[in-house]
Amino acid sequence: MRTLMKILLIHGPNLTCSADASPRSTATQRSRRSTLRFRRAPRAAGAALLAFQSNHEGALIDFIQAEGWDADGIIINPGALTHYGLALRDALAALSASIVEVHLSNVYKREAFRHTSVIAPIAAGQIAGLGWQGYLLALEWLLAKDAAPT
Amino acid sequence: MRTLMKILLIHGPNLTCSADASPRSTATQRSRRSTLRFRRAPRAAGAALLAFQSNHEGALIDFIQAEGWDADGIIINPGALTHYGLALRDALAALSASIVEVHLSNVYKREAFRHTSVIAPIAAGQIAGLGWQGYLLALEWLLAKDAAPT
Amino acid sequence: MRTLMKILLIHGPNLTCSADASPRSTATQRSRRSTLRFRRAPRAAGAALLAFQSNHEGALIDFIQAEGWDADGIIINPGALTHYGLALRDALAALSASIVEVHLSNVYKREAFRHTSVIAPIAAGQIAGLGWQGYLLALEWLLAKDAAPT
Amino acid sequence: MRTLMKILLIHGPNLTCSADASPRSTATQRSRRSTLRFRRAPRAAGAALLAFQSNHEGALIDFIQAEGWDADGIIINPGALTHYGLALRDALAALSASIVEVHLSNVYKREAFRHTSVIAPIAAGQIAGLGWQGYLLALEWLLAKDAAPT
Amino acid sequence: MRTLMKILLIHGPNLTCSADASPRSTATQRSRRSTLRFRRAPRAAGAALLAFQSNHEGALIDFIQAEGWDADGIIINPGALTHYGLALRDALAALSASIVEVHLSNVYKREAFRHTSVIAPIAAGQIAGLGWQGYLLALEWLLAKDAAPT
Amino acid sequence: MRTLMKILLIHGPNLTCSADASPRSTATQRSRRSTLRFRRAPRAAGAALLAFQSNHEGALIDFIQAEGWDADGIIINPGALTHYGLALRDALAALSASIVEVHLSNVYKREAFRHTSVIAPIAAGQIAGLGWQGYLLALEWLLAKDAAPT
Amino acid sequence: MRTLMKILLIHGPNLTCSADASPRSTATQRSRRSTLRFRRAPRAAGAALLAFQSNHEGALIDFIQAEGWDADGIIINPGALTHYGLALRDALAALSASIVEVHLSNVYKREAFRHTSVIAPIAAGQIAGLGWQGYLLALEWLLAKDAAPT
Amino acid sequence: MRTLMKILLIHGPNLTCSADASPRSTATQRSRRSTLRFRRAPRAAGAALLAFQSNHEGALIDFIQAEGWDADGIIINPGALTHYGLALRDALAALSASIVEVHLSNVYKREAFRHTSVIAPIAAGQIAGLGWQGYLLALEWLLAKDAAPT
Amino acid sequence: MRTLMKILLIHGPNLTCSADASPRSTATQRSRRSTLRFRRAPRAAGAALLAFQSNHEGALIDFIQAEGWDADGIIINPGALTHYGLALRDALAALSASIVEVHLSNVYKREAFRHTSVIAPIAAGQIAGLGWQGYLLALEWLLAKDAAPT
Amino acid sequence: MRTLMKILLIHGPNLTCSADASPRSTATQRSRRSTLRFRRAPRAAGAALLAFQSNHEGALIDFIQAEGWDADGIIINPGALTHYGLALRDALAALSASIVEVHLSNVYKREAFRHTSVIAPIAAGQIAGLGWQGYLLALEWLLAKDAAPT
Amino acid sequence: MRTLMKILLIHGPNLTCSADASPRSTATQRSRRSTLRFRRAPRAAGAALLAFQSNHEGALIDFIQAEGWDADGIIINPGALTHYGLALRDALAALSASIVEVHLSNVYKREAFRHTSVIAPIAAGQIAGLGWQGYLLALEWLLAKDAAPT
Amino acid sequence: MRTLMKILLIHGPNLTCSADASPRSTATQRSRRSTLRFRRAPRAAGAALLAFQSNHEGALIDFIQAEGWDADGIIINPGALTHYGLALRDALAALSASIVEVHLSNVYKREAFRHTSVIAPIAAGQIAGLGWQGYLLALEWLLAKDAAPT
Repeated sequence: MRTLMKILLIHGPNLTCSADASPRSTATQRSRRSTLRFRRAPRAAGAALLAFQSNHEGALIDFIQAEGWDADGIIINPGALTHYGLALRDALAALSASIVEVHLSNVYKREAFRHTSVIAPIAAGQIAGLGWQGYLLALEWLLAKDAAPT
Repeated sequence: MRTLMKILLIHGPNLTCSADASPRSTATQRSRRSTLRFRRAPRAAGAALLAFQSNHEGALIDFIQAEGWDADGIIINPGALTHYGLALRDALAALSASIVEVHLSNVYKREAFRHTSVIAPIAAGQIAGLGWQGYLLALEWLLAKDAAPT
Repeated sequence: MRTLMKILLIHGPNLTCSADASPRSTATQRSRRSTLRFRRAPRAAGAALLAFQSNHEGALIDFIQAEGWDADGIIINPGALTHYGLALRDALAALSASIVEVHLSNVYKREAFRHTSVIAPIAAGQIAGLGWQGYLLALEWLLAKDAAPT
Repeated sequence: MRTLMKILLIHGPNLTCSADASPRSTATQRSRRSTLRFRRAPRAAGAALLAFQSNHEGALIDFIQAEGWDADGIIINPGALTHYGLALRDALAALSASIVEVHLSNVYKREAFRHTSVIAPIAAGQIAGLGWQGYLLALEWLLAKDAAPT
Repeated sequence: MRTLMKILLIHGPNLTCSADASPRSTATQRSRRSTLRFRRAPRAAGAALLAFQSNHEGALIDFIQAEGWDADGIIINPGALTHYGLALRDALAALSASIVEVHLSNVYKREAFRHTSVIAPIAAGQIAGLGWQGYLLALEWLLAKDAAPT
Repeated sequence: MRTLMKILLIHGPNLTCSADASPRSTATQRSRRSTLRFRRAPRAAGAALLAFQSNHEGALIDFIQAEGWDADGIIINPGALTHYGLALRDALAALSASIVEVHLSNVYKREAFRHTSVIAPIAAGQIAGLGWQGYLLALEWLLAKDAAPT
Repeated sequence: MRTLMKILLIHGPNLTCSADASPRSTATQRSRRSTLRFRRAPRAAGAALLAFQSNHEGALIDFIQAEGWDADGIIINPGALTHYGLALRDALAALSASIVEVHLSNVYKREAFRHTSVIAPIAAGQIAGLGWQGYLLALEWLLAKDAAPT
Repeated sequence: MRTLMKILLIHGPNLTCSADASPRSTATQRSRRSTLRFRRAPRAAGAALLAFQSNHEGALIDFIQAEGWDADGIIINPGALTHYGLALRDALAALSASIVEVHLSNVYKREAFRHTSVIAPIAAGQIAGLGWQGYLLALEWLLAKDAAPT
Repeated sequence: MRTLMKILLIHGPNLTCSADASPRSTATQRSRRSTLRFRRAPRAAGAALLAFQSNHEGALIDFIQAEGWDADGIIINPGALTHYGLALRDALAALSASIVEVHLSNVYKREAFRHTSVIAPIAAGQIAGLGWQGYLLALEWLLAKDAAPT
Repeated sequence: MRTLMKILLIHGPNLTCSADASPRSTATQRSRRSTLRFRRAPRAAGAALLAFQSNHEGALIDFIQAEGWDADGIIINPGALTHYGLALRDALAALSASIVEVHLSNVYKREAFRHTSVIAPIAAGQIAGLGWQGYLLALEWLLAKDAAPT
Repeated sequence: MRTLMKILLIHGPNLTCSADASPRSTATQRSRRSTLRFRRAPRAAGAALLAFQSNHEGALIDFIQAEGWDADGIIINPGALTHYGLALRDALAALSASIVEVHLSNVYKREAFRHTSVIAPIAAGQIAGLGWQGYLLALEWLLAKDAAPT
Repeated sequence: MRTLMKILLIHGPNLTCSADASPRSTATQRSRRSTLRFRRAPRAAGAALLAFQSNHEGALIDFIQAEGWDADGIIINPGALTHYGLALRDALAALSASIVEVHLSNVYKREAFRHTSVIAPIAAGQIAGLGWQGYLLALEWLLAKDAAPT
């Protein structure tokens, strides 16, 4: 492994962080704050963070194919693609990076269709329901992963 | 509510209205005629109509995030995304606009997979099988909605 | 087709319009107001409207067999029979009239058993969730239907 | 057993035999012709035939409770109640008469919901798809039943 | 609440109490004895009991709409309508009365289709398998209900 | 159609008619008696009857391919192949003969797997539960079929 | 039967009656009050009441094996074991005592997994949703049971 | 048909052929080699080959709408869209071209979700598990198709 | 591998090639023509072709056990056994030969039971819907297989 | 029971014991060794062993009908027919002999379709996963069965 | 392997062997007799037998963790835990001992929930329906296991 | 909230930390190491940690009822009870503490029954597949929770 870890932070549909988003979407707001804190964390730990968001499943796959092959870790909140994005799954499954699936809310408390993840079986693990801190915990785990057997 | 209602008309995959579409697709032709009549209607009623079509689920979400936050009503024919577009559903669910799901054909007469809509549970209502007039009826309902309790 | 269209307005169980109904049932109240407005509409359009309500599936079928064979259009809110009234379905399926199934509420937001309609596959179309205006829209469509290919 | 057998011929919803029925319903016509031939047959065999048709499940049960307790055989085409008429089933199950369920068409060639009969498990047997002759064959079997072990 | 409680006792299909019923139906007999004891009980407790039986789902709904809106309690054995009487359910759900669903036999020991009740989710509670005494226990509970928090 | 009708009588596995069968199998005995009466009937009616029994699905298909192409009617009790003999179904479906599926017992009263027939959807009709007379009734129907529209 | 009836009152997991339970659990409080009233009732009726509660399925079975073999009646609220306690079911099924399953709340209004009881098929009956009075009604039924045929 | 056949070769998500793809993806490599051989084949046969790959379902539909209306044949490996790309299916279903669905691996040996294809019911046929040669065989079939009835 | 490849061509029930087959079965005719062309092809390629057809699953297994152990490739159209021939599957699974499952028609366009193949998971691949040419393509693939990694 | 017990040893498809079987099939080898040991065992115990193997379900039924009616015990490994051989089941169910179903491997560790046995419900018991010794244990049990109540 | 084999005999809930068990439970009696014979058998074979019964799943796991790590074989009748004791399964799966699951009765003849075993997939094999001799056969197999390849 | 947080660490069946556990269970070893690190962490953060492990669901509930009512946070790895421990779920659901469900392995990569958690819907969130660090991350989240809105 290289001295500087390369970690991808991927957000799926409806998890936009841009400034012009509707002020009504609290999910958007929370995600934005989370990302701000998130981006500061890896710098101290000597890791390079590359963030990407798209509402297009195809664009997420394009990004994964372009940047994923030499990534050490991937933190992904696939949004609703969690439940049917099989093409996204195939793109992630082709990588050797450790993948952590993160959900802001506890999906197991919501609609039945949100209880199934097509991404989880090809990820290293899953963090759900712990809010924006879920991203920080996933990052922490990726950074600490070398020091411990899984 | 503002003096001029803002209404979005959204068409999903394969419901293209452009002039270069294949002449063999009768669905396309009917949709085009419908849109022409449809666009003339709201002007008389003092409403602004904004139409968008895309074969890309991501582009539909991009449009909804850009234009949906201050829309008063949405008329959407999600095409085949009706049955699996959970990301589209999440984008629509974040809005406060009244949403009417429209299908040209009676989907309950067709293949079993067309009997399930992931959009319907977050819409105000659904019109199916009434052809291009379904759009006009949906528009009429959105315009009349202030005058009556739902 | 005859000069004067014959349109049936059929309400199933628990959608009573009579004056002696319990004042607590808001569904009943809404249905009554809807019917009043509804009855005025077709007169202007030169159509004869024949309304019928019953809590008995058998009585609905008796009515359909007596009045349906020369009807041009049928607007039906089958109430809970929507979900299991297969005999009602067979009675309607034997007619040549265009049938529009109307539901006051968005049944797709309610209990799972309300998501399935045994009537929809034999209807021309369905309007759900648009309140009492759903009846007016259905009527409008039936009246306009000659002028446009379905 | 009495000298004169008492046999009930019961038709469920939409299997009306009355003269004023819609001429478009071929099922009705076929049923009517069948009944005419049917009624002549038992007289020669010294059996009393009592026929009843209703679109009301409740009326069918009323008839069965009034006339079924001393009937020797029952020929029933429950129409669409075949698939959900559990109350009709309970009424029939309380009798000691031999019951033959008859369907004009081969229900196993039609919609999936017609493949299940809630009546069949409490009947002696079922005849399906043999048209109006199914009634004659059922009658023949009921008349011949004493002479042979089932 | 008024001084004199109004309690409805409703029996569904095949639970007839009339004297001319078939002597073979033991369920009928048991129901009749139960009703006799049952009718004597509320008089002592200062409650008015109104009993109704019908084999017609529609008639049950007619009765509920006529008498249910000012009832304080309802004891109902829906018979086989327990399993598919969604219109009956809707009629009951519109009331404010406390509803107790009673079954003479333990339906959970019988055919699989009897294990599901469409009435139970809108009732206060259910008593099954305790024979005709189930009615008395339901009545006792309705009479005592004011004195204790549920 | 030729002057002399050709009718095939086909029995599937475990419905052997031979004299050396186990005396314990009452199904076998009943089937044997049935066949004896059955064989006498068509001669009077001027029809040629060709009977075949095999425990081998392949042998049943061989027979159908050899004798079925010019048969006018087929009476078949497929035994347990009723429930999984898809190859037998394909063999029968290739014929133009009218096919009547017969079961000695009421299969709808027995194990759940016996409630499904893969043969019924390609047959003209089905007779179940009427014992050995079911064969005679099927024969009668095939012979009378010319005289009446199905 | 002996002069003094032996009745077991069994509570499953999370239905503790002890004084040190968390004051936040209202289910616990209600159960405690219910038990107090409950224990006073049988003494007047000349029956011996033996109460037991455990969070351990195994301990419930131990108790049933030790005290159940000569019990005349069992009132059991199995708590969540209702839905998966097959070993508890087997222990109860081995007894000759009349068993009444009691639930404080109407389980049919709650999560789907609470709609299925593995205990109900081996009980005499079930009382659900009638609060702590459900225990009293069950007791009353057990005491009165000798005087009436089930 | 025109002298020069127009054949589209369409690859769905994760089946990229570009030179900058990750060297770890063997599926990518195999697909690339396959395409090279594939492109040489039709030139000899006098057919024009138009190839397109995208990770975006929408882009695949855009391409099909632009180039598909006058295509004679389509060879498509939809990747993971095979299992949920209903919009892609609708786009293909609108064409008159013969469509062959090709999978490099035997999808029936892999995860259960890969056993279902929403594309297959609207294709002429399917080739699976024959590696990159599957494309050549599909091409061969399209070229030879005129010479033989399907 | 030996100089001369040994390839088995196996047809299941109802895919008879014999001259005495019914002229009405077009499937039979097509299969026959296909086999004729098919048999000429391998000779040029230096492969020995051994063809077998049977309506008996057992006979197909007997043949596979006798001839399959040293076969290099197997082309099999199992007919309806595709969907339930688990014994045939076990026989094929014991071989080391490459197996290609071929269907004349696109089974995914036909009855639901034809969408499942118990053979496909143990085959190398599947060709469906390409008519008699499917056999030639399968043969071509088996002959070319040495030259390329799967 | 006779002095000399008659025990049938029946092997279904792909469990051939003949010398010419493929040397690659280890299941075959194991089965052969097992049979050799098996055949020696009953002789010492004074029982007559009759063994039969066939790849044809029909031949297995023929054998059972010829030899099963006076057999005292049956040891059967139905191979893949375990999962769909309903005709085989019917043949066995007609016997009075005690039947033990034996599987060499633990079918519950293998493909899901192997977890269901249509034979088990009509057998006395089942031994699975204990290799060739399963046959010996089944034999031992049959021989010892007289001495102990089941 | 050590000279003296260590074999655990584990009984789950309701399979108590103690002297004070209810005399009504015949299952208990049979289990007791079985255990007595069972305990005598291994002594002759030079194996140490350690028996344990508990109605507590937790106690069974405690025992397995304390005694299972150096056991050579385990014979377990999990009682009703067979169907839901996933924690018991996990405890057993952590061992290297050969495990035989034994059921006194043929569970495949009883209620549907008894047809599924969560233990079977992690056991070596299963013996069901052979009564108390099932234990002896399991013991015999464990003792003989060294002498033969599985 | 009190100055010193009270956090419970609960391990379900087969997650024993005691020194005498089998050395073969690597899950046990990993869990032990995890617990050691885990216990040191909260001391620095000024939180009191109370750990408990049991193989008994009942004992886990006893512990939760005794210590949970004033706990601020709960970290629980329910082991196999995750999938069926509804009583454990009810015990946890009665608390006001924040609950984090932790799994050492990615349960979504394992057997299908491990994909469903009855605990997750009543927890704040879930961490799976991140090994022993999952506990530390859960602890970190509980400690940081006050500082951020969920």
